[in-house]
Amino acid sequence: MNEPIRLPKTTTGYKSFYKIIEVSKKLFAEKGFLATSTNQIISEAKVAIGTFYIYFDDKRAVYDYLLNDYSRQIRKEIQNAIKDLPTRYEKEKEGLKAFIKFSLNDRLSYRIIWESMFVERELFVNYYKRFSEIYMKQLHQAVQTNEVDRKIDLETLSYVLMGIANFVGLQIIFKDKVTDTDIDNTVNHVMYILQHGMFN
Amino acid sequence: MNEPIRLPKTTTGYKSFYKIIEVSKKLFAEKGFLATSTNQIISEAKVAIGTFYIYFDDKRAVYDYLLNDYSRQIRKEIQNAIKDLPTRYEKEKEGLKAFIKFSLNDRLSYRIIWESMFVERELFVNYYKRFSEIYMKQLHQAVQTNEVDRKIDLETLSYVLMGIANFVGLQIIFKDKVTDTDIDNTVNHVMYILQHGMFN
Repeated sequence: MNEPIRLPKTTTGYKSFYKIIEVSKKLFAEKGFLATSTNQIISEAKVAIGTFYIYFDDKRAVYDYLLNDYSRQIRKEIQNAIKDLPTRYEKEKEGLKAFIKFSLNDRLSYRIIWESMFVERELFVNYYKRFSEIYMKQLHQAVQTNEVDRKIDLETLSYVLMGIANFVGLQIIFKDKVTDTDIDNTVNHVMYILQHGMFN
Repeated sequence: MNEPIRLPKTTTGYKSFYKIIEVSKKLFAEKGFLATSTNQIISEAKVAIGTFYIYFDDKRAVYDYLLNDYSRQIRKEIQNAIKDLPTRYEKEKEGLKAFIKFSLNDRLSYRIIWESMFVERELFVNYYKRFSEIYMKQLHQAVQTNEVDRKIDLETLSYVLMGIANFVGLQIIFKDKVTDTDIDNTVNHVMYILQHGMFN
């Protein structure tokens, strides 16, 4: 079976490929996937019709590429931020900061990712299920080393932590102006809650 | 200035009004707001074109009605569930259950609410800012009564709690089959985290 996405083989090819990706990202974020047509992508990317179809079957193939790319990029950013840290506490802290900074630098990411609900329910479900599974593995290790409380269900904990990251990310991108100190302060409050709970 | 939404004055009027609302909800959830046209709503609701415009200026007016209605409904469900409870702990617990059950019964709610990102950024921002403000007031009272730790920034805490509710809601609606016991178990784990934190 042919793949719906075919990566370029030349530098010129990559130039067209990324032009298509960038224009699609902008259109999907502005208008949504369903209101964007393949023809619009071709026209705004200023590539020949045939060029588009060398790389992609249709706009859905472009969307799938974008969604996978976000998943990969976000995991990579977090991984880079936490890889040398000794404790799960520090990993959560720096991972959260990395996620917030990623969201702040690429404000379209929420739109593209949450749009998957409309493109196909399974895409959205799998996007978060996959994140949850990877998170659970890391949390499981931290239970083994006695850092994380073993009484907590790790699937629930993974969704709790993803929910906190996503919504504290929103809290921050809702602001007109954000400094690194603002992010540090917010993350410190989150870590306090994750350490002590919210109740007296 | 005329309002973009004009409520019906008769029972027959309300019948058409709600038919338009129900059809729009379905179309917005399936295809998204931007890919749905006012004409499609009129045609699928099987109302006369003139009837639509008695009540709404356009599809945007219908969307605004739906979004406000969700905000009102969700707050009402939570309010009903927690109003007679004595402690903030129990309020958080039963409020979370009420939110999850609402999301489970109306699986389109996430789509309609998150779609507001595409309809107009301000709508999405205001939707959550308003929830956050109401939440902060309640949390502030619980700080006064010494139930919630006063060292925590309440804006951050409100987004942490909204994030948990939304993503644990997703965790549950992602499952094929969910019982009340499943919801209770998940909520108990969340409450354990909110009480003790996640770390040893």
